[in-house]
Amino acid sequence: MNFASDNWAGAAPAVMSALSRHNSGFSPAYGTDPLTDNVCRKFNDIFEREVAVFFVATGTAANALSLAAYSKPGGAIFCHRDSHIQMDECNCPEFMTSGGKLVSVSSGDGKFTADALQEAMAGFPEGVVHQGQVASVSISQATESGTVYTPEEIAAISDVAKSRSVPLHMDGARFANALVTLGCTSAEMTWKSGVDVLSFGATKNGCWCAEAVVFFDLEAARGFEYFRKRGGHLFSKSRFVAAQFDGYFENDNWLETAGHANNMASRLAAGILAQGGRTAWAVEANELFPIVKRSQFEKLEAAGAKLYEWPAKDLTPNIAPAEDEVCLRMVTSFATSEADVETFLKVLSDEE
Amino acid sequence: MNFASDNWAGAAPAVMSALSRHNSGFSPAYGTDPLTDNVCRKFNDIFEREVAVFFVATGTAANALSLAAYSKPGGAIFCHRDSHIQMDECNCPEFMTSGGKLVSVSSGDGKFTADALQEAMAGFPEGVVHQGQVASVSISQATESGTVYTPEEIAAISDVAKSRSVPLHMDGARFANALVTLGCTSAEMTWKSGVDVLSFGATKNGCWCAEAVVFFDLEAARGFEYFRKRGGHLFSKSRFVAAQFDGYFENDNWLETAGHANNMASRLAAGILAQGGRTAWAVEANELFPIVKRSQFEKLEAAGAKLYEWPAKDLTPNIAPAEDEVCLRMVTSFATSEADVETFLKVLSDEE
Amino acid sequence: MNFASDNWAGAAPAVMSALSRHNSGFSPAYGTDPLTDNVCRKFNDIFEREVAVFFVATGTAANALSLAAYSKPGGAIFCHRDSHIQMDECNCPEFMTSGGKLVSVSSGDGKFTADALQEAMAGFPEGVVHQGQVASVSISQATESGTVYTPEEIAAISDVAKSRSVPLHMDGARFANALVTLGCTSAEMTWKSGVDVLSFGATKNGCWCAEAVVFFDLEAARGFEYFRKRGGHLFSKSRFVAAQFDGYFENDNWLETAGHANNMASRLAAGILAQGGRTAWAVEANELFPIVKRSQFEKLEAAGAKLYEWPAKDLTPNIAPAEDEVCLRMVTSFATSEADVETFLKVLSDEE
Amino acid sequence: MNFASDNWAGAAPAVMSALSRHNSGFSPAYGTDPLTDNVCRKFNDIFEREVAVFFVATGTAANALSLAAYSKPGGAIFCHRDSHIQMDECNCPEFMTSGGKLVSVSSGDGKFTADALQEAMAGFPEGVVHQGQVASVSISQATESGTVYTPEEIAAISDVAKSRSVPLHMDGARFANALVTLGCTSAEMTWKSGVDVLSFGATKNGCWCAEAVVFFDLEAARGFEYFRKRGGHLFSKSRFVAAQFDGYFENDNWLETAGHANNMASRLAAGILAQGGRTAWAVEANELFPIVKRSQFEKLEAAGAKLYEWPAKDLTPNIAPAEDEVCLRMVTSFATSEADVETFLKVLSDEE
Repeated sequence: MNFASDNWAGAAPAVMSALSRHNSGFSPAYGTDPLTDNVCRKFNDIFEREVAVFFVATGTAANALSLAAYSKPGGAIFCHRDSHIQMDECNCPEFMTSGGKLVSVSSGDGKFTADALQEAMAGFPEGVVHQGQVASVSISQATESGTVYTPEEIAAISDVAKSRSVPLHMDGARFANALVTLGCTSAEMTWKSGVDVLSFGATKNGCWCAEAVVFFDLEAARGFEYFRKRGGHLFSKSRFVAAQFDGYFENDNWLETAGHANNMASRLAAGILAQGGRTAWAVEANELFPIVKRSQFEKLEAAGAKLYEWPAKDLTPNIAPAEDEVCLRMVTSFATSEADVETFLKVLSDEE
Repeated sequence: MNFASDNWAGAAPAVMSALSRHNSGFSPAYGTDPLTDNVCRKFNDIFEREVAVFFVATGTAANALSLAAYSKPGGAIFCHRDSHIQMDECNCPEFMTSGGKLVSVSSGDGKFTADALQEAMAGFPEGVVHQGQVASVSISQATESGTVYTPEEIAAISDVAKSRSVPLHMDGARFANALVTLGCTSAEMTWKSGVDVLSFGATKNGCWCAEAVVFFDLEAARGFEYFRKRGGHLFSKSRFVAAQFDGYFENDNWLETAGHANNMASRLAAGILAQGGRTAWAVEANELFPIVKRSQFEKLEAAGAKLYEWPAKDLTPNIAPAEDEVCLRMVTSFATSEADVETFLKVLSDEE
Repeated sequence: MNFASDNWAGAAPAVMSALSRHNSGFSPAYGTDPLTDNVCRKFNDIFEREVAVFFVATGTAANALSLAAYSKPGGAIFCHRDSHIQMDECNCPEFMTSGGKLVSVSSGDGKFTADALQEAMAGFPEGVVHQGQVASVSISQATESGTVYTPEEIAAISDVAKSRSVPLHMDGARFANALVTLGCTSAEMTWKSGVDVLSFGATKNGCWCAEAVVFFDLEAARGFEYFRKRGGHLFSKSRFVAAQFDGYFENDNWLETAGHANNMASRLAAGILAQGGRTAWAVEANELFPIVKRSQFEKLEAAGAKLYEWPAKDLTPNIAPAEDEVCLRMVTSFATSEADVETFLKVLSDEE
Repeated sequence: MNFASDNWAGAAPAVMSALSRHNSGFSPAYGTDPLTDNVCRKFNDIFEREVAVFFVATGTAANALSLAAYSKPGGAIFCHRDSHIQMDECNCPEFMTSGGKLVSVSSGDGKFTADALQEAMAGFPEGVVHQGQVASVSISQATESGTVYTPEEIAAISDVAKSRSVPLHMDGARFANALVTLGCTSAEMTWKSGVDVLSFGATKNGCWCAEAVVFFDLEAARGFEYFRKRGGHLFSKSRFVAAQFDGYFENDNWLETAGHANNMASRLAAGILAQGGRTAWAVEANELFPIVKRSQFEKLEAAGAKLYEWPAKDLTPNIAPAEDEVCLRMVTSFATSEADVETFLKVLSDEE
């Protein structure tokens, strides 16, 4: 029963097989190979327009370098208080932006609203040097709380960003999961809703190391290769990242793996609900945060379940864990088995 | 006939097979998996002592982060004029060290001497704030000119570094090639000769993305994980780098691939010499820089050879290209075939 | 009636006269002159121990460079939500620390407690690379709300910092004002209470440009000159900063100017209170934040008063401005006249 | 006999008197005061066009921040091997540009030619990510060797810069000295010759701390205030820098002080020549580098002369110091007296 994280899984079969398939022979280095060209065209197809694609090593690098491309001296980057860039990247964004400040915009469910953003931005008036200057806005899709922004919500946030002439970045570490949930197109979830640059994550959803910065703002993409190289993120044998994406996209494999992960999460959530349980936030992608009795948590761990206790802040009183309860984080992936889901629910429901 | 670069090759069979072998099942993320532990122990074996090993995405990152670990405000980093860190890394070292200055130490054959280093360091007197402060010394093994430092030369350079209390870094992008040439142990070529930190490159020699920073200076290694993460270089599914190293080291596969590459280079060099030709520098690893007639270069290209013209600076008059000659760069790898070597020599020797 | 800021004042007579006095003749540059030596000894006297003193151009530089001396990759710097380093320095601290993150610790009155600090630090567990590492703690004395930490409060905060082995920095832009209020010694307010490094500000209190970083932690002071020079903050004609400090300290002039400023603030506060008014926070130094009717604010401005409306957040309901009220910020200095105080109170009390 | 440096002098009388004159009363902080406005208009007059002027604390800051305004990831900044930014600023340029690389362009006399620049730039081909990208060109006027670029030479260098679409920066630490030598206008020596941004130094020529970044490229000046503030270089009591410039420019005082310094240097040079001596380079501003017998150097020092031995590299054999000779650096200023010049020449000529 492994619900520790989607990055505990290996690579999906289609991805491994693509890696083998593209291994033989010589191929130009540093991203100038024909396979990379093919994959970039595939990105154009997916987004229904020309995009500029840059492979990088990690999701953290994708985020930080995206923001670096729009950095300004004294730049303020607006993001959710619980976002990965704010909480989990060891100041990589601050470093890559040469000292950017991540300004937290808060709300309880991992998302922030356009209004909350506007209020936060008001603290950084145009032309006042002391507070620095508004540089960019970043949202996560899906969020760290397992929730998903609708295209309308994204568009409203983008409007606020545009009102200050700054771009909207999307951390798409779980892009596919959100996409499958919304049932919209990749275009609708991004540039059609005002996203300018995207961290397109494939690692968690079945690759082993396939992350890309995708620019819809082609002007900003010019010169980005220097940011990437300066960060040490230009692979020499770049074709192997391309190979992973090739397997990932082939036959819509990526939507299938994400769909499976989402289904497993939904079934877990439904099962918990059916037992009279609750989750901290709506389960909209492949993460869920059930609130269970501490004794249940212990039983789960005893049964070999891998999952984490989570510091669920700012929950409303009727949701928040009681004294004898804990909030857990569970993440599903393409590798999550139905059997594990059943076992989990079984252990949880055990009375005694 | 592909002699363009050792990073045009794919991954060696043993490496691909290890990747597949270690793909199944769940494994902890961010380098806390058992396979990474095993591989780190293997590094200890190879270096005959405890070392601290950190995987990173690229050789550029390995170099820049190594130097970052020893950075100082106003730090001067001494390196060869033609070194990769000085010429080919788009200021990644300068960026990761928050503004370090790479000070060139020159000599004609890709290596610099202890004396030349001492002279260069004299321009940075202790305690004078204007020039900044001596921070580190970096050598490449093998060098960008295809030459190799002897352990004695390394030790002499290290002594100069130590006289100013700074570490010696080795860029080992072609570590295995140099090692096979010298026929010494990995320990002798590194810490026993005064190397403090090493960029251990495996990508060029048969992996697809396996680079590590190896600290012999365990004190400096403490805290390094934060430099790596801040640079966006901590892989989530880190086990896949470990898997590559597992296949790389297994049955001394790495020494075999390097040995093959070196042999191919030697045979090319011997063949060129036998035809009355010459190379710009001694062929001591898997790179060679033959000086040929421009007409020969054209014939080679017409025959499909991939190789580059090289700006060979500062050669002595009897070696330097004549008006109708060019200097070429050729790189061999585990994937270089004997047939290609023969074809190359055949084309070169064609009279008419 | 100028209550806009203490940096709207010029230089105090003693400071101007010292500037003239030390102008003639030649003197070594870059802080190696005898006058600088004398002034540094004077700092030793004031702090009753050996300290390391470095002049810099601005208070912002003093703060940012102090924090830079203790920076770490992924470093978290704990400070008050309203602190100057967090709100008013255009990311200078983030930049000088190569991407540090300023973590806000909150409380209503410009000060934070040891407990609040401890709780904030708990979010950065030792040895977890994702969140980065605790790097330093910074307090302002006096605070941006015009309040003053007691030595006991400082010591408690320092204890928490020390429990994580990080230093305590004090932003002493209004050091003298706080000192006069507390009536303790400079030693008691700093190193005896666990302060490791201090931004010693003299500009606001009667100099025109005299700021210093004062290290009590002499070990950390080694190498600091390189941080300063790298930031472009080593004056060539450094003796002119020394000259200002010479006039500043002479005959305890600095305590007198601070005392005057504090008195003016107290009288304003007392007058407001006597009229049945209130201030947002206790008036403990040379800043006050009266809450007045908007009509009164307009009358004051019409009478030529220079003062600012202030966004007073998180005040308790009985203090917070009512619909028809505004919170103002007023700052007094050595140059504030009793006449202006009287005029202000007169205008405020005018009924009609 | 003080020839140590022009920054060993104090402030010229007109500057001190302006400081006193502008001290009284309140004045807005952070450069929003009327005096600063006046001084900025004076800059417009001097340069015969609209310029954007930003005061900073030091010449090093002026240089580094100017370059920062044009920084790019992987940026190469071309400058003379002996330039202040390359040799004397403790990596402030590298730091402020977030890891720029200063590429040395060499020539013997402190100046480099347009051709040498073009050749150096050729090593950084457009669109090749490994070498990074050409970012800017910087020249010093007067140079570190005491020589002066003609407007024609500047224009030729600017043309090469423009051919790669990068700006030309001028380090004008000794701007006035060069200007007086050339006898041209400030406009001719700068923007009319293709200079885009200038470090306008007044400190060495009679102020105590008056340095400005002057943009002719008004587009690039937008946003520069954030670079300055991020570097901690926005003075609160900024009017005191303005006051210095006010005194400096008044009645062409600055041209007079520079003229005096240049005259003193010329007389020294003429006297040396008349005695059969020689200087390393032509004496074109207020620095000279006489080559004297070591015994003469000792006699001068015994007589109390302050001057430095200089490592004069790459001089032609007929100029270079013989075994028993040394090269000295001497700097004159507004404060250099004719008596000191006479004494120096007298001591030098003493036979015995």
